[in-house]
Amino acid sequence: MKAILSHRSIRKFKNTPIDESLLNDILYAGSRASTTGNMQVYSIVVTKDQSIKEQLLPCHFGQEMVTQAPVVLTFCADFNRFNKWCIQRDATPGYDNFLSFITASIDALLAAQNICIAAEDKGLGICYLGTTTYTADKIIDILKLPKGVVPITAVVLGYPDEKPELTDRLPMPAIIHREVYQDYSEGDIDQIYAAREAMPLTKKLLKENKKETLAQIFTDNRYSKKDNVTFSKVLLYVLHKQGFMNNDM
Amino acid sequence: MKAILSHRSIRKFKNTPIDESLLNDILYAGSRASTTGNMQVYSIVVTKDQSIKEQLLPCHFGQEMVTQAPVVLTFCADFNRFNKWCIQRDATPGYDNFLSFITASIDALLAAQNICIAAEDKGLGICYLGTTTYTADKIIDILKLPKGVVPITAVVLGYPDEKPELTDRLPMPAIIHREVYQDYSEGDIDQIYAAREAMPLTKKLLKENKKETLAQIFTDNRYSKKDNVTFSKVLLYVLHKQGFMNNDM
Repeated sequence: MKAILSHRSIRKFKNTPIDESLLNDILYAGSRASTTGNMQVYSIVVTKDQSIKEQLLPCHFGQEMVTQAPVVLTFCADFNRFNKWCIQRDATPGYDNFLSFITASIDALLAAQNICIAAEDKGLGICYLGTTTYTADKIIDILKLPKGVVPITAVVLGYPDEKPELTDRLPMPAIIHREVYQDYSEGDIDQIYAAREAMPLTKKLLKENKKETLAQIFTDNRYSKKDNVTFSKVLLYVLHKQGFMNNDM
Repeated sequence: MKAILSHRSIRKFKNTPIDESLLNDILYAGSRASTTGNMQVYSIVVTKDQSIKEQLLPCHFGQEMVTQAPVVLTFCADFNRFNKWCIQRDATPGYDNFLSFITASIDALLAAQNICIAAEDKGLGICYLGTTTYTADKIIDILKLPKGVVPITAVVLGYPDEKPELTDRLPMPAIIHREVYQDYSEGDIDQIYAAREAMPLTKKLLKENKKETLAQIFTDNRYSKKDNVTFSKVLLYVLHKQGFMNNDM
């Protein structure tokens, strides 16, 4: 619980390697996560080699932590292993469809979060790389992911060389709905975002970006429609290519 | 770490309600999870009402724990709140695409796993409901989820009334790849599944199901191609209906 409550993303790491047995303990914690039907339809690629991390760097938009952190973990939805097992055991796998991709992604993400919490509990720092799905096609090539395998997220891991403040979060009523979904009125939205909009950091960002509202920084700069559409096409292409879009009998 | 390592899915619950402040602490732990760009594009529907749980029961294939557990949490990918905020702040949201659905699903799943670990740390038991994506269309109606919101997983929560053994997992080399993906040889697959295939439980299942291999129980009974294709269609329909498949500018 302490590890969960004190999570902050770490983007600067010490030049200290992670002891192999500690890394194995953390990875083992990942394997204890819930998994659909105990199929464990995910894989974790553990990359330490500097030259491979340098290849991954542009996939993660040049964020220096990718080469600076001693370890990059790439979490993949993976039906390749399960399919191979089925075929070797006279069973006909039917996992080349969208539902199976989502099932495998859920497995991968629950394992990822277990690993992040275990790492933080052991004094390490982590940061998720949301760029993983944006450039999944390139990551597939670099990490040699076969058909049936799609990278869904990645995490950099190492000893923190910074201690940032806890990030603000929306007030709890923003994300919690009692019994059924309670849709937001205009007043609710104003209230939910009021504290964030009043932060000195927000004022600073508005000035720097020459924008009138914080929301415009998201829609125009950080997560634009143009980028989202481009990355949607990449990801759907990847699902086809990796064999997860055969949605007919 | 202790909570992570001792996780087992709980399917029988005591008739003891969860104290509201404890529940709030656990939900708060969810809000501390990593989230893309701090957007928190997820929602959690907390259902305690018996009549609503009874409506959810068939969506979860009649698993009794849904009505027996004091609380059902439904985790949703949610861009509705964020879109509303953008529109109220003269910003044009571009989040009606597949990438945004995946981004929001990742947010929801990391929060879900934080909540499960926090709950187990406090002595509660949990079980994920993989059925959530299979019947997302019906859950949307029952929980009144508006456009921009898709249920991605659910969890039952309560005080355990059983203590099952830890579930077996594949040996670690099955899921871990060093530097890049190391594809599996036939011998690797045999080795990975050997211990599971030799378990007395497996022998029992083969007899009960009149199958020759454990893999056939998965492909023919538990997760058949026919079901996967049906549920893939449901989920893709839901993505269209909830506004996540406009993948052009």
